[in-house]
Amino acid sequence: MAKKPAWVVEKERKGRESLWLFGLHAVRDALLNPARVKLRLVVTRNAADRLGEDALAAGPAPEVVDPRKFPVPLDPGSVHQGAALEVRPLDWGSLAEVCFPSGFADPADRVVLLDRVTDPHNVGAILRSAVVFGARAVIAVARHSAPETGALAKTASGALERQPYLRVQNLARAMEELAEAGYMTLGLAGEAEMDIADLDTAGRPVALVLGAEGPGLRDKTRETCDRLVRIGAAGGFGSLNVSNAAAVALYATRARG
Amino acid sequence: MAKKPAWVVEKERKGRESLWLFGLHAVRDALLNPARVKLRLVVTRNAADRLGEDALAAGPAPEVVDPRKFPVPLDPGSVHQGAALEVRPLDWGSLAEVCFPSGFADPADRVVLLDRVTDPHNVGAILRSAVVFGARAVIAVARHSAPETGALAKTASGALERQPYLRVQNLARAMEELAEAGYMTLGLAGEAEMDIADLDTAGRPVALVLGAEGPGLRDKTRETCDRLVRIGAAGGFGSLNVSNAAAVALYATRARG
Repeated sequence: MAKKPAWVVEKERKGRESLWLFGLHAVRDALLNPARVKLRLVVTRNAADRLGEDALAAGPAPEVVDPRKFPVPLDPGSVHQGAALEVRPLDWGSLAEVCFPSGFADPADRVVLLDRVTDPHNVGAILRSAVVFGARAVIAVARHSAPETGALAKTASGALERQPYLRVQNLARAMEELAEAGYMTLGLAGEAEMDIADLDTAGRPVALVLGAEGPGLRDKTRETCDRLVRIGAAGGFGSLNVSNAAAVALYATRARG
Repeated sequence: MAKKPAWVVEKERKGRESLWLFGLHAVRDALLNPARVKLRLVVTRNAADRLGEDALAAGPAPEVVDPRKFPVPLDPGSVHQGAALEVRPLDWGSLAEVCFPSGFADPADRVVLLDRVTDPHNVGAILRSAVVFGARAVIAVARHSAPETGALAKTASGALERQPYLRVQNLARAMEELAEAGYMTLGLAGEAEMDIADLDTAGRPVALVLGAEGPGLRDKTRETCDRLVRIGAAGGFGSLNVSNAAAVALYATRARG
């Protein structure tokens, strides 16, 4: 029998996978997201009241539980506020469908690529910035990314439901696909000669590539970038936290009026 | 007997207070900071080797301990890497000494004020951005700030030793002092009409004021600002994490060479 193609394996895996979202805000956002496959809703009576009718009507029948025996397998310290929702990971579609649905990127299109950025707090903040600056997607390497979890959803503060977060097998290949569709791929690197403020991105779709703190961009990623840029520093010391660098880069290369 | 002035009480309190810094990076940075009062250095033999001679020579005689019995009172989960240093909080001096030592602010001077931002990860990232963009100080309300702790030092990744972090009793009073010295005080507020990108800060010292996520700026803080500005959003949804907003605001209002 022929071997199943990788995308079929991936789709089947995603079809079985589930995660628990928790906290009133994250659970409400997911309930109200029509694209989210919802499996089980566990709430205290108080949390059910606070979620509101609209949110409750959009989910599976709530299992109302005693707050003293909250029967959901969450990490210790998870602030669930009496609400948890078991869901499937979101399926945003392929890189092409999300980042250049018409076949070519538009001038105002922006994406953020993460080369082994795994900290959920950083990825959550980056998803928020991507929503604010209207990016098409945040793209990470599947094997070294922050997985879609309740903790990520919480730091993303609603952005996980709104912002496409794609995991790809090969980051350099994804960068090449984006470049073919018209994106200028910009790697953030402290030692780059060009200051991002001096780069003219007018009329160009832009893919920003950021590495993990410490190791930075891998060699292959670096070589695949059209350009390397740095965020100019008055102080000359230190470096930005990766989510801070992503926010500044999105701001610096934003499409203007 | 006359009541002691507040600054004397504060100075006496600081003279007694101590905290444990931990992790090779944070301990090395503090050892090499001549302004840091160091009380006790506890290390494993391996950590002593990795700290290096220069760092060790700058501190108190190391107490070399067995890695299996690390005798320092740290929070569970603190990644100490076999190194901990008991220190006094840094004394940066008064607001005036740090933010306008000549009596008036210079055009390139920047400060960041935090209205009840208490999360150490956010404050640590803001200290890093303040170093990168050459800000004079990060200023917080004493009673609602992230205290100087080992966890803050770790997320600040060296910035706690370099970046003045002042705690003041009254934020509005500090803003008034800064305004009298020439600073334009800019409050970040999502509902502001003016986009920070459209504001001309050329030749003006700038004090950026950020509130906690959710509540935002308190009324008194808001009223004391010269201007309120927002970070323009293409997406129109969501909001930036507070440290991301601080980094973008420092970038957007940076003094240009």
